[in-house]
Formats: sequence, structure tokens, C-alpha cells
Amino acid sequence: MVRTTASFGTSSSFVLRLGQTLFSSASLLFMCFNDDEDFYAYTTFCYLVTVMGLVTPWSVTLALMEAYSILVKKLPMQATVISVIVAGDFVLSFLSLGGACSTASVAVLLMDAGEKQCDRYKLSATMAFLSSFLSFASTFFNFCLLPSLMSH
Amino acid sequence: MVRTTASFGTSSSFVLRLGQTLFSSASLLFMCFNDDEDFYAYTTFCYLVTVMGLVTPWSVTLALMEAYSILVKKLPMQATVISVIVAGDFVLSFLSLGGACSTASVAVLLMDAGEKQCDRYKLSATMAFLSSFLSFASTFFNFCLLPSLMSH
Repeated sequence: MVRTTASFGTSSSFVLRLGQTLFSSASLLFMCFNDDEDFYAYTTFCYLVTVMGLVTPWSVTLALMEAYSILVKKLPMQATVISVIVAGDFVLSFLSLGGACSTASVAVLLMDAGEKQCDRYKLSATMAFLSSFLSFASTFFNFCLLPSLMSH
Repeated sequence: MVRTTASFGTSSSFVLRLGQTLFSSASLLFMCFNDDEDFYAYTTFCYLVTVMGLVTPWSVTLALMEAYSILVKKLPMQATVISVIVAGDFVLSFLSLGGACSTASVAVLLMDAGEKQCDRYKLSATMAFLSSFLSFASTFFNFCLLPSLMSH
């Protein structure tokens, strides 16, 4: 299996990482900076903030590694490192998908109950969903890279 | 890439399909047969019922195909058919994961608000989560089968 379009160390993968960083931090900001109701009153929102608090540093770290690999010196591609990245991306994409769906459903329920601040919760859920989608894209492209690394 | 342990037409894949059928129909039954509050009052629960209503026939159909392939006559393995199965499993596993997480978060919120019937909602979410996990396992094993089919 040849090197895929957006696998580790390519500029498109770097763009994917930037997107993940952008969306997960936006999700965090929308959730945390609310006018009246505080998010920690709801378990679901605490879960989303926790997951996004994991996704953001994970994406920033990988974005820096990829920038270094593209701009300074090509990093050696080892199967173990890529497997760890694939596993991490996979787990985080599932966790953030779960967080996004839970937050969206609770926001809809609160809106039905007359809560005013729901737009920010829905925006936060949308950002988390986009971040989860990009995480899964990274998972897929790096996963397709693994067989060719393992056969070396 | 050689034939994987639980790819289409093997007994372990058949067991995976039975598990999916069992969990998705259990999720449906727990959600629909409730004493007082009706599920369709909440958007999230309607979404879960819709998704489980898709997963159950999908799993039953594939279970029957696999039983036929194991017991009667081995079905020819074409890359296009397996790709359709992988895509369907993948989409349904994501949809049911989203449904499970939304239902769980709304059930927790309702429980905080003093609702009595939440145990069934939580059971239904748990079943949906297990069904989503088994769907993703099928996706993974059949996806690993694709390269060897395509190289024929």
C-alpha cells in the first residue's frame, strides 16, 4: 500500500491537524465563555470540555511535529509511532463524536425547556463534530499507511 | 493482506451479526415499551429509534447471507459487495454511536430533573452502544479484507 495523500508528514496532514486544533479550541471557547448559565451544571458539557481539553493539546503537538518534519528535517517513519498516532486519533475521534452528539441533544432539550443560551452550546457541539470528523480522517489516512511501513 | 478472523462469510462474523441484531432490537424494545412517558416526546429518542430501525434489518439481512454462505453454498466474494458492506457498517456504527451518546446524556438530564423511567432509556442507550461497537468491529475486519480482494 503506497503512501496516502494525507498521511503523517505531508502538508495536507498538517492542514488536517490545524483544522482539528482550530475546531477543538473553538468548541472549548464556545462552551466555556457563556453569559449566564455555567456549563459545569450539566454532566454532558463537562464531558465535552474534558474531551476537547485532550484533543486540543494532542492536535497541537502533532501539528508541531508535522511542521518540523516538513520544514526542518524529515522525521523517520516508524510503524510503532504511526500506530500510536492512529490509535490516539481513533479513540479521540470516537470520544469527540460522542461528546458532540450528547451536547447537541442536551442543547435541544434545554431549548425546548425555554433556556436562552443554547446557541453557544449548539455551536460548541458543531465544532466538536467537525473536529471529530477531521480526527477520523487522520486516522484513516495513517491507517492506510501502516501496512507499507510494517512490510519494511 | 490475508483473510482476517471475522471477515464476511466466517462463523465469527456470523456471531458478530447476531450480536448486532440482538443489541439493536433490544435497544428498540427498551425504548419503545415504556410505562408512562412516551419516547417520541424527545427528538433524541426518536433519532435512536430511527437508527436502530435501520441497524436491525441491516444486521438480520447480513446474518442470513452469512448463514447461507456458511451452511449452504459459499457466496462469491466481490470487492464491490464487500465495499458496500463496509460502507454501510461504518455509517451505521457512527450513527448508532451518536444515538447512544445522545440518549445517555438526555436520560441523565431527565434523571436529574426527577423523571422516573430513566433506567430503560439508559439500558436502551447501552444496547445501542454495544451494537455500534460490534458494527465497527465488522467494519474493521471487512475493511482489512478489501486489499486482498482488490488485488485479484
